[in-house]
Amino acid sequence: MDELLTQVRQGRRRAIARLMTLIENDDTAAHTAVAVLHPFTGQAHIVGITGSPGSGKSTLVNELAKALRGRGGQVGIIAVDPTSPFTGGALLGDRVRMRDLAGDEGIFIRSMASRGSLGGLSQKTGALAKVLDAAGFETILIETVGAGQAEVDIASTAHTTLVVEAPGMGDEIQSNKAGILEIADILVVNKADQPTAVNTVKALKLMLQLGLRHETDNGVEPVWQTPVLEAVAVEGKGIEEIVTAVIRHRETLRANSGWHKKEAERSRQEINHLLQTRFMAQLRQTVPVAEQERLITAVAQREMDAYTAVDQLLAVMSKA
Amino acid sequence: MDELLTQVRQGRRRAIARLMTLIENDDTAAHTAVAVLHPFTGQAHIVGITGSPGSGKSTLVNELAKALRGRGGQVGIIAVDPTSPFTGGALLGDRVRMRDLAGDEGIFIRSMASRGSLGGLSQKTGALAKVLDAAGFETILIETVGAGQAEVDIASTAHTTLVVEAPGMGDEIQSNKAGILEIADILVVNKADQPTAVNTVKALKLMLQLGLRHETDNGVEPVWQTPVLEAVAVEGKGIEEIVTAVIRHRETLRANSGWHKKEAERSRQEINHLLQTRFMAQLRQTVPVAEQERLITAVAQREMDAYTAVDQLLAVMSKA
Repeated sequence: MDELLTQVRQGRRRAIARLMTLIENDDTAAHTAVAVLHPFTGQAHIVGITGSPGSGKSTLVNELAKALRGRGGQVGIIAVDPTSPFTGGALLGDRVRMRDLAGDEGIFIRSMASRGSLGGLSQKTGALAKVLDAAGFETILIETVGAGQAEVDIASTAHTTLVVEAPGMGDEIQSNKAGILEIADILVVNKADQPTAVNTVKALKLMLQLGLRHETDNGVEPVWQTPVLEAVAVEGKGIEEIVTAVIRHRETLRANSGWHKKEAERSRQEINHLLQTRFMAQLRQTVPVAEQERLITAVAQREMDAYTAVDQLLAVMSKA
Repeated sequence: MDELLTQVRQGRRRAIARLMTLIENDDTAAHTAVAVLHPFTGQAHIVGITGSPGSGKSTLVNELAKALRGRGGQVGIIAVDPTSPFTGGALLGDRVRMRDLAGDEGIFIRSMASRGSLGGLSQKTGALAKVLDAAGFETILIETVGAGQAEVDIASTAHTTLVVEAPGMGDEIQSNKAGILEIADILVVNKADQPTAVNTVKALKLMLQLGLRHETDNGVEPVWQTPVLEAVAVEGKGIEEIVTAVIRHRETLRANSGWHKKEAERSRQEINHLLQTRFMAQLRQTVPVAEQERLITAVAQREMDAYTAVDQLLAVMSKA
């Protein structure tokens, strides 16, 4: 493992990929390895990119990676794919990507299937980002699908959150935008060559002006004004402007306390997650499985409520 | 609180609403109340309805509620709205609903904003469902937006999961469907009067036939075959067929071990969540805030890794 970590820090691709596989497989040695790498992280700019299916976000991520490469520096892509591991969708995505970005040693791509990894997903994404960070990647793009929890998690992990919208995707979108605006540092209307794009841009700008953002709640002038940018990712249009905004956001964070706040928030989450994992492991070690199952069945059959079951579990644990 | 619980069990609407508000506000008394209600739950059929924004799922839920009422029995609706609490979107949704379903004492509607309730959302949804269950509601419809974690959570909470699709919503949808198929007990293609609907139905049926479902993995013939149904919810078309499928799924679960498995899974999650909540509360009580913040800062500044920080926190806890 020491040799592997040395190679990771040298930026050796095979070592990076191998460590990532260990992390994905929840290998115990990998947890220790990530801890060892921790002091060598903190330099990379972590950018979360999120948006609905069909917004063309994967294409946009590829174009952003190419443009960031053009400005120097290595770029890592972590794509969180909600496809079933069973269908191999994540691997397929990788192959499509590889064809597009192939031959560039400065770009590293990793897809991660999200199904089945209940709860631990954002932790694993964070660990993969740490590997790339320690390997010297300047920018790490984390791509996720979906509205809801996943987006909130990304927002608390990334330094910069970019939300991709497609023009006019239905009436329900409107009511969902408010939540999205709260986490977006940069808004991109992709497929901006479609006729309805102008309305989407207008609506987003209006909502931003109406002061739906957190920062204005307390009457303090926000340090950062969320820009609404237009792009046609398949034609490479609007990409440079987005890259400029991404870099400008990073500089704004660094010039203020924003960067440190994000790092502290990520550390807090990491510590809490580890604490809970340790506690649940302790539970499994001290309470026999048969006893755990007996209590679960009792609650399921309404012979006992969950609070009483928890009291009994904690009592067994404290006696051990 | 005793009086409130008595009234809840009598199905009194104001009492139900009041207890739900206490639950949403994380009131400690509400937690105890839910525990007290637990023995009186377990009768309701919990149906999760999920789908992308724009699939017309809210309209479909309203129509299903009306149709279920037509077959007798009270119906509860819990709508998990990803809108910001700040914008009041959830309340707006309620008002639109109320206009549509107003005057029917046998339907109870509650919207819940999901923003900000990191992690605890599915627990709160579960608690609200328990209140309606104890109040004698036969069917509880839980509506959620979004692809990803929220859907998986719903699937593990509901007895029956209904996934709503709109016709041809973009190329990325295709790769996301595999994940959706794994959790869907019933698939509904809404807006089936659109010309591309026939392709969506065909694609879904094909994917089901290709054996992407869990149950066929182990070579065992599945007890339940996921039907693909068509609907035009705004015109009330296809609703009766969906209601029939929902009831048929409930009967299939009850005739097999499915119902008990779902109850056990829900109990397991409830116990685990309570355990973690208790543990974190204990941490807050025994470790001074300044010490917690010192460790978080040390990790954020790369002076310490998270594992070491957790070791130190646990050491302080065990001494207390």
